Amino acid sequence: MKLATLKDGTRDGQLAVVSQDLTQAHLATHIAPTLQRVLDDWAYLAPQLQDLYDSLNQGKATRHAFAFDPKNCMAPLPRAYQWADGSAYVNHVELVRKARNADMPESFWHDPLMYQGGSDDFIGPTDAAAFADEAWGIDFEGEVAVITDDVPFGVTPAKAAEHIKLLMLVNDWSLRNLIPAELAKGFGFVQSKPATSFSPVAVTPDELGDAWQDGKLHRKLTVTWNGKRVGQADAGVDMVFNFPTLVAHVAKTRRARAGSIIGSGTISNKSANEDDSVGYSCIAEVRAIETIKHGKPQTEFMKFGDTIRIEMFDGKKQSIFGAIDQTVVKW
Amino acid sequence: MKLATLKDGTRDGQLAVVSQDLTQAHLATHIAPTLQRVLDDWAYLAPQLQDLYDSLNQGKATRHAFAFDPKNCMAPLPRAYQWADGSAYVNHVELVRKARNADMPESFWHDPLMYQGGSDDFIGPTDAAAFADEAWGIDFEGEVAVITDDVPFGVTPAKAAEHIKLLMLVNDWSLRNLIPAELAKGFGFVQSKPATSFSPVAVTPDELGDAWQDGKLHRKLTVTWNGKRVGQADAGVDMVFNFPTLVAHVAKTRRARAGSIIGSGTISNKSANEDDSVGYSCIAEVRAIETIKHGKPQTEFMKFGDTIRIEMFDGKKQSIFGAIDQTVVKW
Repeated sequence: MKLATLKDGTRDGQLAVVSQDLTQAHLATHIAPTLQRVLDDWAYLAPQLQDLYDSLNQGKATRHAFAFDPKNCMAPLPRAYQWADGSAYVNHVELVRKARNADMPESFWHDPLMYQGGSDDFIGPTDAAAFADEAWGIDFEGEVAVITDDVPFGVTPAKAAEHIKLLMLVNDWSLRNLIPAELAKGFGFVQSKPATSFSPVAVTPDELGDAWQDGKLHRKLTVTWNGKRVGQADAGVDMVFNFPTLVAHVAKTRRARAGSIIGSGTISNKSANEDDSVGYSCIAEVRAIETIKHGKPQTEFMKFGDTIRIEMFDGKKQSIFGAIDQTVVKW
Repeated sequence: MKLATLKDGTRDGQLAVVSQDLTQAHLATHIAPTLQRVLDDWAYLAPQLQDLYDSLNQGKATRHAFAFDPKNCMAPLPRAYQWADGSAYVNHVELVRKARNADMPESFWHDPLMYQGGSDDFIGPTDAAAFADEAWGIDFEGEVAVITDDVPFGVTPAKAAEHIKLLMLVNDWSLRNLIPAELAKGFGFVQSKPATSFSPVAVTPDELGDAWQDGKLHRKLTVTWNGKRVGQADAGVDMVFNFPTLVAHVAKTRRARAGSIIGSGTISNKSANEDDSVGYSCIAEVRAIETIKHGKPQTEFMKFGDTIRIEMFDGKKQSIFGAIDQTVVKW
């Protein structure tokens, strides 16, 4: 099923079920007021939402259904208790480091790189992304994320798979020129990773059919910057750590509780080096490739007024999650 | 006023007002079900809670009052949307680095060190702290934290002070032997900072009287390990970045939303080097001092069965926040 959170002036919005083709929606607040509440009690509430979803898809819930408009969406979880983002496409990490002549530790191939992100204030899929200064080096990062229910302490990757309840797309906004100083301190990102954006709907794994395999989402992420398609990397390719492994990483020394969002990191395919059509899911990566090839980056970071669209299509060219479609504005 | 969250079998517990002397409590769920809800609408709800608090202190709310028992407490926010922990006692950072022959960058004196922590699963003040392996290097960290309401993007430290609504004590559990490998990756702590514990009550700054000055809490933190007092550092001394500065640091590139918890980092006084009575608020620090003095650490990290008590007293030797009083157990 597909779930969205609609704007209603409150901090947490209203839960809605969205039809498979993203044309219709139906409030689900009679089942649970918010998506967090569903995750808190998934086994009991998800089947009720599934019934509503089935009715909506079959045209049987028409009386209170309405046209689905992503502009009315908040992030599926407008605020969350956990947002931990991996760097599962190690190719991306290696490229960015190579561009600054830094070797990548061999351990990065078997020990996931992950940071704990701020989760108190997510941005809706079509809401403007506001920054104070272009000089911060404004960059998008196209990713996939999962949402879990309660994950036990020390869970194995095999068992962790069962706790993945929903998937979303992510734009993990990054301020590139603030990153070096923060990374040098060793304590991760606070200022250089501001509020994150998510897709209009979160979907259950069964919606993905064969594309959800081995704990990876085997579909291309289409990234369009100022109307030009710049990325078409396959999220299922070159993902060194699959989602269950990332979830298990979070839960190695503690429980991870319902509503935890675990991200893949910027999607990146090795073939982008040879095949220009693969492109990139963040500007930092194309700048790294340019630096390796030409000695310096050519592509500049985002400017106020720039737009970014991040989307993923199924085999029938139907948008799976709806589009993250944002404009960069001055705060 | 003093606020607590009582266990009721739910994830978020029940809001209660606690008397100034911590002997009596009164449910406040008729005003707001949870502390998060109060922070979401502080201006409207806090005065109602203050009225109840005043009545309780004056003995006018006796009909539904009951004895306050910290054992029934969850963390004031059992889960939160943000937990960002500073390292404001730069002395601590310098000591720990000196012990491993690492210079401290000069910038650490004017640019706060801070990490984003997991906030999906906090531990109640008297609940056991469970770990899988003593070899992880189990350590306590005694700290003070503030809780904010909505903090605007780019707030100045002067303005940030207005957004500090509550204070708590913290035990920022740390797994010392997992830290070096995580810090080397540069992305901060994920596995080496498991679930954090907080004091039984959160208190408004007005409860602290003269002890709350210049954005610092000028009182000693009493740390007792296995019944032996090991720490008595003054939280108001050697705090290089006060709380408003830490809050402003979080909000430099984005808003920080209601219910954000911002920590001080381990409380540490320079005078501990000469004055043994000052002691330490975490084992890592005494081990660092031992290493500097004797070439190697002598004090071992915590074992299963160890107890840790963290408390702060006012001028009348009355506990301000109640005690964090935990036993380390095997998961």
